[in-house]
Amino acid sequence: MEAAETRRRYVVLAEGEFGEPGSKTAMGVIKYGHDPVVAVIDSTRAGRDVSEWLGLEHAAPVVGTLAEALPQGGKIPPDWRSIIAEAIVNGLDVVSGLHEFVSDDPEFASLAAAHGVELIDHRRPPERHEVAMGRRHAPGKHVILVVGTDCAIGKMTVALELRRAAQEAGLSAAFVPTGQTGIMIEGWGVSVDRVISDFINGTAEWLVEQAEEMGDWIFVEGQGSIDHPAYSAVTLGLVHGTTPQAMVLVHQPGRNGHFGWERATGATAPTLSLADNIRLYEAVANAVAPSRVAAVALNTSLLEEEAAQTEIARVAAETGLPVDDPYRFGPQRLFAQLRASLEEDG
Amino acid sequence: MEAAETRRRYVVLAEGEFGEPGSKTAMGVIKYGHDPVVAVIDSTRAGRDVSEWLGLEHAAPVVGTLAEALPQGGKIPPDWRSIIAEAIVNGLDVVSGLHEFVSDDPEFASLAAAHGVELIDHRRPPERHEVAMGRRHAPGKHVILVVGTDCAIGKMTVALELRRAAQEAGLSAAFVPTGQTGIMIEGWGVSVDRVISDFINGTAEWLVEQAEEMGDWIFVEGQGSIDHPAYSAVTLGLVHGTTPQAMVLVHQPGRNGHFGWERATGATAPTLSLADNIRLYEAVANAVAPSRVAAVALNTSLLEEEAAQTEIARVAAETGLPVDDPYRFGPQRLFAQLRASLEEDG
Repeated sequence: MEAAETRRRYVVLAEGEFGEPGSKTAMGVIKYGHDPVVAVIDSTRAGRDVSEWLGLEHAAPVVGTLAEALPQGGKIPPDWRSIIAEAIVNGLDVVSGLHEFVSDDPEFASLAAAHGVELIDHRRPPERHEVAMGRRHAPGKHVILVVGTDCAIGKMTVALELRRAAQEAGLSAAFVPTGQTGIMIEGWGVSVDRVISDFINGTAEWLVEQAEEMGDWIFVEGQGSIDHPAYSAVTLGLVHGTTPQAMVLVHQPGRNGHFGWERATGATAPTLSLADNIRLYEAVANAVAPSRVAAVALNTSLLEEEAAQTEIARVAAETGLPVDDPYRFGPQRLFAQLRASLEEDG
Repeated sequence: MEAAETRRRYVVLAEGEFGEPGSKTAMGVIKYGHDPVVAVIDSTRAGRDVSEWLGLEHAAPVVGTLAEALPQGGKIPPDWRSIIAEAIVNGLDVVSGLHEFVSDDPEFASLAAAHGVELIDHRRPPERHEVAMGRRHAPGKHVILVVGTDCAIGKMTVALELRRAAQEAGLSAAFVPTGQTGIMIEGWGVSVDRVISDFINGTAEWLVEQAEEMGDWIFVEGQGSIDHPAYSAVTLGLVHGTTPQAMVLVHQPGRNGHFGWERATGATAPTLSLADNIRLYEAVANAVAPSRVAAVALNTSLLEEEAAQTEIARVAAETGLPVDDPYRFGPQRLFAQLRASLEEDG
């Protein structure tokens, strides 16, 4: 949330999901949000503490009842409805990142009016309906899009960590949120997967235009992956709309298939090698504006520390690119290498 | 429109645009629609006849006043508002392909209610919000996506012509409309550029599922182009959502730049060669499911007939693919070659 706004205290609703892969919005908001999270609702983990997952700096109880809602995933799960209603009745504002808007729900809307609380849908797209105009970046701006070999792989985290490193290096830097988690963390942005398809490239272009007012080093959160059977259109809209000078590719060694997709659908789809991913991102990006994959950010969370370092060295040798896990080992080294590489380009 | 529906008689509103590139929806509906067009409104061409552009079989007067609306391009142009209102007051239904829905406009909606006419927005997306599920094509189905090296290049026309050739060859065939013009012609489909980005792949998959009930040879109308700065996300959503066994690539020799885009924006973007287009479409398609560009359909409208035949032969030699202008020289030969090529694949 922006500093100028009233601070909120959050109760995070993650019923049945906390600590699981499906709770990535909850985890991201707790870890990176400006506002404190005072509790998490998950009756299956009631009595535990958020610090078990995210460290002592994020201590907060996991409780089993009543909540302010912060759901994720798309639709309002039926078993969340009564909790959301109870939150409203108890005077809590509701902040949602779902495709199905809580503020458009007649029951919630009338309850909210009766109890004087606010319903905020962070995924609601802007009214703006503009196609991409081929806007050039202002002089001195470095636009870096963080892409991935899959969805839910850590693109937002990498972008936030790289921004931090740029700021620590004394540079002015900005983060461009393109999903509901990033928007909750930063207090601005657009959930681009909710934008009308004809306007996704144009919306991405407009987000970068805004970010250029905020800093010289601009890290854009990518979405999905260029080979994702369901979400690739969103991915490409960001690539062509932001026209990044460079892309950072996030990859998780040990991941099989597409996050949740094969399991949910029973279908199969190819998994591209890291080298093929680099080639395909560069081929599609260069069809509109010059760009290249300038670094690889590995998500080594499935590896022990020594194996992680070995894998980082292996991928660096294989790709000839700067490679690190900026979340696990700090973003400073990867950012310094990325910066040197981009400043060589001029 | 479907045969079972009440037949409509159309008045086409194309003020200031008839016969220009911007009137492609109007031209498509007149040429391929099932229902008769009784007049075109364009005060700058009043007194002329549609047959001057489209031949005697499409004779209809171009007039300068009053209209049933059939606009194109996105927003309701200010100078069309009074004509649309006049149409409603005079008891005409209004059929629109704009992004800005006439039925959501309070003035038009209340006028329509008062005068008992219907406002139909063909670009309104379905309520369906489903992501792509990796559905496999049913056995014996041939799904062919007609893609292009640019937007507004003739993809819908090529798909319609190829379906006709398939039907003439005694095969059961279907056409999948993905834009407002195709929907007006066929009476079903989704204007996919209006769908929420997260669901475009899923919507494309669902359209093919429906088409498989209609025929064995399925020709899907593509949208935009994979290198289009503004519309590429829509293009990729169709490629990955329809998982076509084959793509037919439409190209117009002599076209410079992207249709209308450089002129409207003042920006520039690369133009890929035909060979690079083939490579890029195949690379992105194969990231999700096996596919290939199996034929090239040239739009030779900028060439004299002899030059067109020379260019067709040249491109066939260059690409090693079946090549023809199926609109100018008939679709039978190109379809026969495409069919033989796909049946070889098994």
